[in-house]
Amino acid sequence: MSGYLKRDWETFPTEQLKRVDQPTTKINAEQIKRPSERQAGFCKAAAGDYGERLQKEFRRFVPKHPLSGAIAWMRDNMRPFRDGNMAGSRAPLLDNTEAITRHIKETAYFLRSDAVGVCELPAYAVYSHQFSFKDMDAGEKPMELDHTHAIAILIDQDDRTNQAFSGSDWISNSMSMMSYATSGFVAITLAEYIRRLGYSAKAHYAPYYDLMVPPILLMAGLGEMSRMGDTVLHPFMGPRFKAAVVTTDLPMTPDKPIDFGLQDFCSQCKKCARECPSKAISDGDKIMHNGYEKWPLDVQKCTTMRVGNQHGSGCGTCVKVCPWSKPYTPFHRAVNWTMRNIKFARRFGIWGDDLLGFGKPDNKNKWWFDLEDKNGDGNLTIPKSNNTKVK
Amino acid sequence: MSGYLKRDWETFPTEQLKRVDQPTTKINAEQIKRPSERQAGFCKAAAGDYGERLQKEFRRFVPKHPLSGAIAWMRDNMRPFRDGNMAGSRAPLLDNTEAITRHIKETAYFLRSDAVGVCELPAYAVYSHQFSFKDMDAGEKPMELDHTHAIAILIDQDDRTNQAFSGSDWISNSMSMMSYATSGFVAITLAEYIRRLGYSAKAHYAPYYDLMVPPILLMAGLGEMSRMGDTVLHPFMGPRFKAAVVTTDLPMTPDKPIDFGLQDFCSQCKKCARECPSKAISDGDKIMHNGYEKWPLDVQKCTTMRVGNQHGSGCGTCVKVCPWSKPYTPFHRAVNWTMRNIKFARRFGIWGDDLLGFGKPDNKNKWWFDLEDKNGDGNLTIPKSNNTKVK
Repeated sequence: MSGYLKRDWETFPTEQLKRVDQPTTKINAEQIKRPSERQAGFCKAAAGDYGERLQKEFRRFVPKHPLSGAIAWMRDNMRPFRDGNMAGSRAPLLDNTEAITRHIKETAYFLRSDAVGVCELPAYAVYSHQFSFKDMDAGEKPMELDHTHAIAILIDQDDRTNQAFSGSDWISNSMSMMSYATSGFVAITLAEYIRRLGYSAKAHYAPYYDLMVPPILLMAGLGEMSRMGDTVLHPFMGPRFKAAVVTTDLPMTPDKPIDFGLQDFCSQCKKCARECPSKAISDGDKIMHNGYEKWPLDVQKCTTMRVGNQHGSGCGTCVKVCPWSKPYTPFHRAVNWTMRNIKFARRFGIWGDDLLGFGKPDNKNKWWFDLEDKNGDGNLTIPKSNNTKVK
Repeated sequence: MSGYLKRDWETFPTEQLKRVDQPTTKINAEQIKRPSERQAGFCKAAAGDYGERLQKEFRRFVPKHPLSGAIAWMRDNMRPFRDGNMAGSRAPLLDNTEAITRHIKETAYFLRSDAVGVCELPAYAVYSHQFSFKDMDAGEKPMELDHTHAIAILIDQDDRTNQAFSGSDWISNSMSMMSYATSGFVAITLAEYIRRLGYSAKAHYAPYYDLMVPPILLMAGLGEMSRMGDTVLHPFMGPRFKAAVVTTDLPMTPDKPIDFGLQDFCSQCKKCARECPSKAISDGDKIMHNGYEKWPLDVQKCTTMRVGNQHGSGCGTCVKVCPWSKPYTPFHRAVNWTMRNIKFARRFGIWGDDLLGFGKPDNKNKWWFDLEDKNGDGNLTIPKSNNTKVK
């Protein structure tokens, strides 16, 4: 739950969603070869696979803006608390797995999650090897995680900022870091609570994951695979969130995957592909890759844009322009219902989104300062690409 | 700001509030003798001033419930990050203190604060000596804090839980800890951001304060002094929040104190005094104490109830029953407006609050488990005073 605002037990009306037995994009578990964490785009950039310039930029692309730097500092401070000792005996809980699941989700909302889902932990989602760009000398080590269940925690990247920013200006990384750090704070606290109940539990949040998040979000009913490559899209927040995960051996009742028509919608829309400044997003059809059905993404182009951006800090243009990334107002809720439920209305929705000018920066609500630590010494200057007008 | 829900730049319509030059309760700065932190109720309990039984209970009253224990663990993990080094040079900020103030408040909302206010740091609000019940052997040391300004950050204790709980059952401490830890997380991150701008800044959150919070909340326009002794009441959350503070030498434009009629309201209502299980809250008139005008509170009785409660973990009965502690629904917003603005309606509001049954536990929304670590060894049992029915 996000603060004081009235809520039912969940933040969003998930009871309106159509549940399905399998995710709307195929997952052939037996074909999946578990990747090493080393294969992630950011790890490749950090390790120099994308060249020397990007490797150098990687070290500064988050702290080069003071706000994203400050939030990432806090995120990193919490890293030692991802795991811990559990109680010596199990708590006398109800003999009712559904009630326990509901309780764990309520607890995550109480800790101010924006959306929560539960699934069995798919073994194929765990990295084969761990590799940290924070500690590259340690190299790759086999990853072991024998938990049975996963709790996924989503934190919104802030709709007000999403409306104001251009997609790739100086606040972009701060939005990511805020959701990373906040979801990490919630996941770490929830994992400690479960350990105090006498069950094993570990928190995973960016960039400290033992697992790949997208399949967990699909299985936990938190979204469908979208055109933006490996990005899962939530029916009420769109792609405007980051996710943390708690894995545990506490038995829980899994949520079911959802179908809100996104495969049809993304087939038609293509706005993210059109607007992507690095042309990393395909406007073609889905493919099968390593056992997953998905739209292909050019990870190197995407990573190069985010890490190497000289006119801002990071990039979230796809998040910015996605028609699903809207404020939760009565008007947008009505459109959202229509897009989810009325197939033939989707093409009008997509057309209307452009027509009404959505996805353009709303400069009058810009609240941040464009600042850059050019040399990594903490001295801030106003970058050439700036628009520092704050009302 | 608390997540994705639509917001203007602030969460609440503070522009509706009447601003005044001085707080609605007198503060005679020259009469105030700065107290040592050692004089706080919890420190007295920890140090044994309230007897051996309470001293022993103090060690377990938070961790005796696994959720409040887990959140307090996280809160304590963050303690080392309250302060840090600042950038070697000052950022090229706008020569416009108002815009900077607005920006800092926007940043705090972006980090998911529920309410934010700014004031000059009153020297009398700083403790004369620091004393930590986490580190009692260190004794009392003179407190020094030469910052000029304070940013106060409020985090709601969760309205849904507030409606469900009895006021003094097993979730009470968890509500406090959630707001303590969350406000600390925001304050620590904001302070680091300000240090990266080249200004000194330090985060203060429970129980790691260099200062007393109530006068700062009054000066920052976040509430008025209420009948509940040293508790400041926010016009839209009531007393259902905890506060963290960032002190800094960044020049800012202070907010002005507010007057929403609370002195008149609390003079008539007295519901908290009537319902307080320890009879710590006075139903009499305000007094002057150490330069502050306030309703008197029997701190020993209040602390004894919270620390020594054998039928739950902590106590927040006054928070639970206060007529200002309501969900932010259209109905309650209308009543809230009326109570703030129409003096003669207040007695009907107070009468109606009891008549409509507000302040009673709404058991159907109970989501937590009643559990107790009886012996401090991590083994949980179901306490005798329990009501563990979760739908």
